[in-house]
Amino acid sequence: MTKLVYVLNGPNLNMLGVREPGIYGGKTLAQIGEDCAVEAARLGLGVEFRQSNHEGALVDWIQEAGAKAKGLVINPGAYGHTSIALHDAIRSVQPLPVAEVHLSNIHAREEFRHKTMIAPVATGMICGFGPLGYLLALQALAARI
Amino acid sequence: MTKLVYVLNGPNLNMLGVREPGIYGGKTLAQIGEDCAVEAARLGLGVEFRQSNHEGALVDWIQEAGAKAKGLVINPGAYGHTSIALHDAIRSVQPLPVAEVHLSNIHAREEFRHKTMIAPVATGMICGFGPLGYLLALQALAARI
Amino acid sequence: MTKLVYVLNGPNLNMLGVREPGIYGGKTLAQIGEDCAVEAARLGLGVEFRQSNHEGALVDWIQEAGAKAKGLVINPGAYGHTSIALHDAIRSVQPLPVAEVHLSNIHAREEFRHKTMIAPVATGMICGFGPLGYLLALQALAARI
Amino acid sequence: MTKLVYVLNGPNLNMLGVREPGIYGGKTLAQIGEDCAVEAARLGLGVEFRQSNHEGALVDWIQEAGAKAKGLVINPGAYGHTSIALHDAIRSVQPLPVAEVHLSNIHAREEFRHKTMIAPVATGMICGFGPLGYLLALQALAARI
Amino acid sequence: MTKLVYVLNGPNLNMLGVREPGIYGGKTLAQIGEDCAVEAARLGLGVEFRQSNHEGALVDWIQEAGAKAKGLVINPGAYGHTSIALHDAIRSVQPLPVAEVHLSNIHAREEFRHKTMIAPVATGMICGFGPLGYLLALQALAARI
Amino acid sequence: MTKLVYVLNGPNLNMLGVREPGIYGGKTLAQIGEDCAVEAARLGLGVEFRQSNHEGALVDWIQEAGAKAKGLVINPGAYGHTSIALHDAIRSVQPLPVAEVHLSNIHAREEFRHKTMIAPVATGMICGFGPLGYLLALQALAARI
Amino acid sequence: MTKLVYVLNGPNLNMLGVREPGIYGGKTLAQIGEDCAVEAARLGLGVEFRQSNHEGALVDWIQEAGAKAKGLVINPGAYGHTSIALHDAIRSVQPLPVAEVHLSNIHAREEFRHKTMIAPVATGMICGFGPLGYLLALQALAARI
Amino acid sequence: MTKLVYVLNGPNLNMLGVREPGIYGGKTLAQIGEDCAVEAARLGLGVEFRQSNHEGALVDWIQEAGAKAKGLVINPGAYGHTSIALHDAIRSVQPLPVAEVHLSNIHAREEFRHKTMIAPVATGMICGFGPLGYLLALQALAARI
Amino acid sequence: MTKLVYVLNGPNLNMLGVREPGIYGGKTLAQIGEDCAVEAARLGLGVEFRQSNHEGALVDWIQEAGAKAKGLVINPGAYGHTSIALHDAIRSVQPLPVAEVHLSNIHAREEFRHKTMIAPVATGMICGFGPLGYLLALQALAARI
Amino acid sequence: MTKLVYVLNGPNLNMLGVREPGIYGGKTLAQIGEDCAVEAARLGLGVEFRQSNHEGALVDWIQEAGAKAKGLVINPGAYGHTSIALHDAIRSVQPLPVAEVHLSNIHAREEFRHKTMIAPVATGMICGFGPLGYLLALQALAARI
Amino acid sequence: MTKLVYVLNGPNLNMLGVREPGIYGGKTLAQIGEDCAVEAARLGLGVEFRQSNHEGALVDWIQEAGAKAKGLVINPGAYGHTSIALHDAIRSVQPLPVAEVHLSNIHAREEFRHKTMIAPVATGMICGFGPLGYLLALQALAARI
Amino acid sequence: MTKLVYVLNGPNLNMLGVREPGIYGGKTLAQIGEDCAVEAARLGLGVEFRQSNHEGALVDWIQEAGAKAKGLVINPGAYGHTSIALHDAIRSVQPLPVAEVHLSNIHAREEFRHKTMIAPVATGMICGFGPLGYLLALQALAARI
Repeated sequence: MTKLVYVLNGPNLNMLGVREPGIYGGKTLAQIGEDCAVEAARLGLGVEFRQSNHEGALVDWIQEAGAKAKGLVINPGAYGHTSIALHDAIRSVQPLPVAEVHLSNIHAREEFRHKTMIAPVATGMICGFGPLGYLLALQALAARI
Repeated sequence: MTKLVYVLNGPNLNMLGVREPGIYGGKTLAQIGEDCAVEAARLGLGVEFRQSNHEGALVDWIQEAGAKAKGLVINPGAYGHTSIALHDAIRSVQPLPVAEVHLSNIHAREEFRHKTMIAPVATGMICGFGPLGYLLALQALAARI
Repeated sequence: MTKLVYVLNGPNLNMLGVREPGIYGGKTLAQIGEDCAVEAARLGLGVEFRQSNHEGALVDWIQEAGAKAKGLVINPGAYGHTSIALHDAIRSVQPLPVAEVHLSNIHAREEFRHKTMIAPVATGMICGFGPLGYLLALQALAARI
Repeated sequence: MTKLVYVLNGPNLNMLGVREPGIYGGKTLAQIGEDCAVEAARLGLGVEFRQSNHEGALVDWIQEAGAKAKGLVINPGAYGHTSIALHDAIRSVQPLPVAEVHLSNIHAREEFRHKTMIAPVATGMICGFGPLGYLLALQALAARI
Repeated sequence: MTKLVYVLNGPNLNMLGVREPGIYGGKTLAQIGEDCAVEAARLGLGVEFRQSNHEGALVDWIQEAGAKAKGLVINPGAYGHTSIALHDAIRSVQPLPVAEVHLSNIHAREEFRHKTMIAPVATGMICGFGPLGYLLALQALAARI
Repeated sequence: MTKLVYVLNGPNLNMLGVREPGIYGGKTLAQIGEDCAVEAARLGLGVEFRQSNHEGALVDWIQEAGAKAKGLVINPGAYGHTSIALHDAIRSVQPLPVAEVHLSNIHAREEFRHKTMIAPVATGMICGFGPLGYLLALQALAARI
Repeated sequence: MTKLVYVLNGPNLNMLGVREPGIYGGKTLAQIGEDCAVEAARLGLGVEFRQSNHEGALVDWIQEAGAKAKGLVINPGAYGHTSIALHDAIRSVQPLPVAEVHLSNIHAREEFRHKTMIAPVATGMICGFGPLGYLLALQALAARI
Repeated sequence: MTKLVYVLNGPNLNMLGVREPGIYGGKTLAQIGEDCAVEAARLGLGVEFRQSNHEGALVDWIQEAGAKAKGLVINPGAYGHTSIALHDAIRSVQPLPVAEVHLSNIHAREEFRHKTMIAPVATGMICGFGPLGYLLALQALAARI
Repeated sequence: MTKLVYVLNGPNLNMLGVREPGIYGGKTLAQIGEDCAVEAARLGLGVEFRQSNHEGALVDWIQEAGAKAKGLVINPGAYGHTSIALHDAIRSVQPLPVAEVHLSNIHAREEFRHKTMIAPVATGMICGFGPLGYLLALQALAARI
Repeated sequence: MTKLVYVLNGPNLNMLGVREPGIYGGKTLAQIGEDCAVEAARLGLGVEFRQSNHEGALVDWIQEAGAKAKGLVINPGAYGHTSIALHDAIRSVQPLPVAEVHLSNIHAREEFRHKTMIAPVATGMICGFGPLGYLLALQALAARI
Repeated sequence: MTKLVYVLNGPNLNMLGVREPGIYGGKTLAQIGEDCAVEAARLGLGVEFRQSNHEGALVDWIQEAGAKAKGLVINPGAYGHTSIALHDAIRSVQPLPVAEVHLSNIHAREEFRHKTMIAPVATGMICGFGPLGYLLALQALAARI
Repeated sequence: MTKLVYVLNGPNLNMLGVREPGIYGGKTLAQIGEDCAVEAARLGLGVEFRQSNHEGALVDWIQEAGAKAKGLVINPGAYGHTSIALHDAIRSVQPLPVAEVHLSNIHAREEFRHKTMIAPVATGMICGFGPLGYLLALQALAARI
């Protein structure tokens, strides 16, 4: 059976490719989802790709990933900088391998984006490499699944 | 065609006029919505007036306003002091004119209400003048639409 | 008519007994709900027991409790450390007696769990005594209803 | 007798329309004064419009406003971020309605401009809407005089 | 043999019922001691109830409790917010179950009362429920002895 | 020749007895000036009593006191909490004995009033005893002149 | 009957006149006690003059003063900068007039001496005038007894 | 026509050579003014040399320099560490070359003198070289005029 | 000609595989260098792989990379958390693509490792995935060269 | 006559060898006292060895040491991190040589143990070497007596 | 014999004129060295001009300057903001006159460049005037040698 | 075979006995090295005694000590307050016993010297006893080798 990886996206990521391409690039989230599916297939994995603007929905899906998936890629968007709920959700599904991804380099932006509540409970973090970051994250998880 | 302005209200504002009239006044949110409709009509604008206790719903609606409206009045309530998600949502709809409104004078209350995550990406901010603030905000947007 | 007490549970508490029993114990949330029902009956109270991962849903339910209940027990989980929206919701239902409960001893964990935004507007707080804390909270409310 | 409103302007506002139009716009302070006079007349009010680079002069005039006026609009400029003397002066004339105005959005500028010592003792605050802010402030005061 | 629980009270608690009833209630410390004795008896426990204004005396008694008692209820009063000595004393008697109690809701008072040096080494903490807190604490200990 | 003491008063102290008697008492500054003259005479001293809302004027007068007086009583009002200019002026007239006076207890008010830039270069400080503080300050200086 | 004033002295003040005369002067505490007795007699007051190095003893005596005295002069020494227990003790004897005295100018010394936990609950504070400060404090209290 | 440079001096600098020669040296401000005139002449510049203890006067003069001069040397004294008004005044006259000068080495003195509000909007800063700093500043400006 | 990528390693990384395998894994730095060479070859790149415990040597090499290479992978080790010199060196070679790599998850370790001075001037950052991080970094650079 | 050294021990050190041997080792305080006596004899010194849980008692004994001893070894325990009273007591007995000792390495424990109020007024400090630290401290003092 | 002045340059200054001319100007470090030689000759001084990216080398050279030179100009580059080692080295060669130079205005750049560890132990500091700053520094030293 | 102990000295310690004898004493580093050799011989140990101004060299030598020695005495000088690289190097050679030594009492000097990055990973620390500290450190290590 194909091993499943959840790829979850947080608030405003549905605007990718539409708004602020200078910061986030011109690819839409749907295109990133397709790239992930291709790369996952290459790695022998399946992908469940979702987005929500609701913190609670992300918590729900992380718990679901804990039950159904072998790995989790999460681009928590803005919630990643403040959400203890996401932090707890990820901790509750340990030892599931978790890769945090940010399209932009969070350390090169405003002070309030430098901190991540996700990384301390994730396996690792990748930021600043745009949509490619998702594919690198899939590789990183594949090496541990 | 009438130019549309979204007027969005955050958590607990549905309790207006019911609870804590000493701080927030005796008008209900529905009455404020009606006042906004009247003032908007006077300014040649239409109004879409909504409230939610869900941060994610407010993000959804801001994105919707970016697509459908010419301006946005937002009373983010408690989320305005901490939400990077709302901050990002508003930035993603720029250059839509955005007016942040607070019924009470946030600088005269608890320390944690002094900070706003909305204002840095809004056009301007009005606080402390009660329901009248909504009407002043509509005027301020009308001058830019 | 039986006096009703709402017992609300925040994010990730639906994982109780399933994940991290070392920190949170082996009881499921459903079992805690049953214990609450028994203790409430002993105290002549009825219990409405709910859980959500959504901050907005908790705000909705607190407002509902303000209208229908005589007391509120809330284990806000992660939202309790940062949510001004929950703070405002609880304040908006005053003078409803409110008891904040945490299963673990929040002061013995990470720095970011030491702070509570709920307690300043609650009647009191109980933490560190596991599921028993809910029953003690019901007693504390019973003494004030 | 016409009710009088003082409109006081702090340091460097005499440079308006001359310097840094990118931040503060192209209107001169004199033109703003004229706009205020017109709007005040429409509202049945008189206006005393002044500017000084001296903190002490602003304190003097606030005290004078306390004796002679029914309302006060103050754009404290740079002194608004640090002056306890202005804070005390405004408090000493309470319950005179006071509206703080800033032409630019102080929350979108340097950190040291985010704080206001005036707002905590003012009725409310308007910022970011340029010269229009003065006219909105006059309306806000008119509703309370 | 009856299992003994020490109930220790810190500085100024001997003034209970005499001073500031608005904050601390009208019961004297002696009456609380009697209530504790009754509740302890109901739980099959004995109680040693003491108070001192001296930090050193509290340290002495905690050490004594470590040798003679099966549990410890401590209302450290003002020392609870700053005393590393009490912190160390409680840690030195582990794994004795320890319940920290505060009559008032320390999170709803001055900033310097929000922090507790006791809770990080206690089993749990109860605050804001007045003298009832002592009885709840005894129950919580009884469940662990 | 009578030894002269300057008694200088900072911003808003000219409002004494007129505004906020609950905090500052009902005596006018003129009455305090008269009380100082009487007390100074009793101590064999002369008094030069002045007030200004201008920080620069206070700096001027402190320098003048350095040249003409044997002692200085200063109630710096709001400027006392932030003014390095006053700090430097007082240091520049050392070893002139200087007594800082505040009518209210600055430590019992807002956080920003707890700090004094004057005291570190003054001989001593008296606060919280109302107009009597001026007379105590004159005594303290008399003992050193 | 003579009205009694307690004059309490904190840790290390028994070393006065013996150690560090450069900072604290050459008078012994006994001599200060005698000066206080003389001044109190002049003001029609009696004096109970004590010193202890024990924080708990100072708490005990403040409570005793609350029962037996009409006023309290306290030089809390080092405990004054950190002790919430003394703060609470003084608050518990309100509305007893309380004057805090420090021999040295605490604002001209190390940062950790700038803060006082006593002053916020005292009537007023006098520092920097050496032993004379006690006598000024007695006068200040006499005016309120 | 001779190019004019304003040399402005802030509070207490009129005391130079009179007070605290250990820190500021023995030259009077008048002598520094004469040195500046000589050096300026050597560089083909004219000098307008002024001093005021009033922050507002310094703001006035900076604005005047913006209209009449080709360069500005400013020793802001104490106001340089806190004044946003001076900061704004200098920014309003950009791109006028501005050299901030301090006689003493501000980084070797109290913490509160380490920060300068002037330098961020000045061309450069010179401190610690005494009156010579003024002459170096004139050279630095001459190279840019 | 083969495009060259520099892979630089900071202090203590020469101890890899020898010390603390629990944190950093069992691979030696030489083995990582070989893996990098293989992966680089696959991507059509050449690799210059070096390590030094000297901050200055790393600065030298970054400057050299700016002249000779098309990309830079840097694992700055401990210097990455504090070194402005490395920050400046990397900025001085912009727009050279730079990928920061850390073997361990720096956000899950001590507070002083959470901050990176490199990332703000790098293209992106990868941490927590062990030696695989180097290979992912090479891919990320390859996509930009 | 034998030169006397006081060796004073603070709160909870009477529990040594009984509780938490993992942190503090298995030797009792009595055994350390005997070791000190032996080492002191070797150095030609006498030892007065005491322990108290009372901060005030330690202040008393430091003063006594100032009168009777030639040196002081103090393990202040928890009071060492916060006590200004001990700081003042030690300063009052200067130039008595004082060696601060901690059994454990205070810099390797909780943040609140990193700071010492004793060391700034002591001759030197030794920590982390267990009971041997007392003997090293005696040697250090012997070299100065 | 010609008096020698060392001119030392820290990390990345060897890139001057090559990289980031917008911030640091177009002159190379070699050209600045030549300008320094010319100016020094004019002032009757000799110059030893060096650069290193190694903090340790700068420490070595400062010590060497202490033995061989009459003055020191140092542009510490990035190390100037954090290096206690350079601070100590400069202090160890006192009373050698030392002038700190920065090409750019460090107060107008990132927060972490505002602080200098060199200036507190230097004679004075010059920043923001580009390569001219070195020549002004030589003049400042010449006046003291 | 003789057990070897490395004694490493950081920046500026080569200036000992030459510069600032008031703080560091009059002994040269060479003399301290000789004293260490004598004491080590007495303890049956050999000594490798070195000094460098280069942080990287110290890292190199610590790693070398990890391979060749049975213990390490390190006086890290200025690097001890900030260097994570030294921290990591010492951690990488655990469980080698490490004693940190400072000649002066770092807690009695500037704030930035109070913190040590070495001690948290060292066995213990000795400061303030001058060159004797090295000999005490050797004893402390000898007891553990």
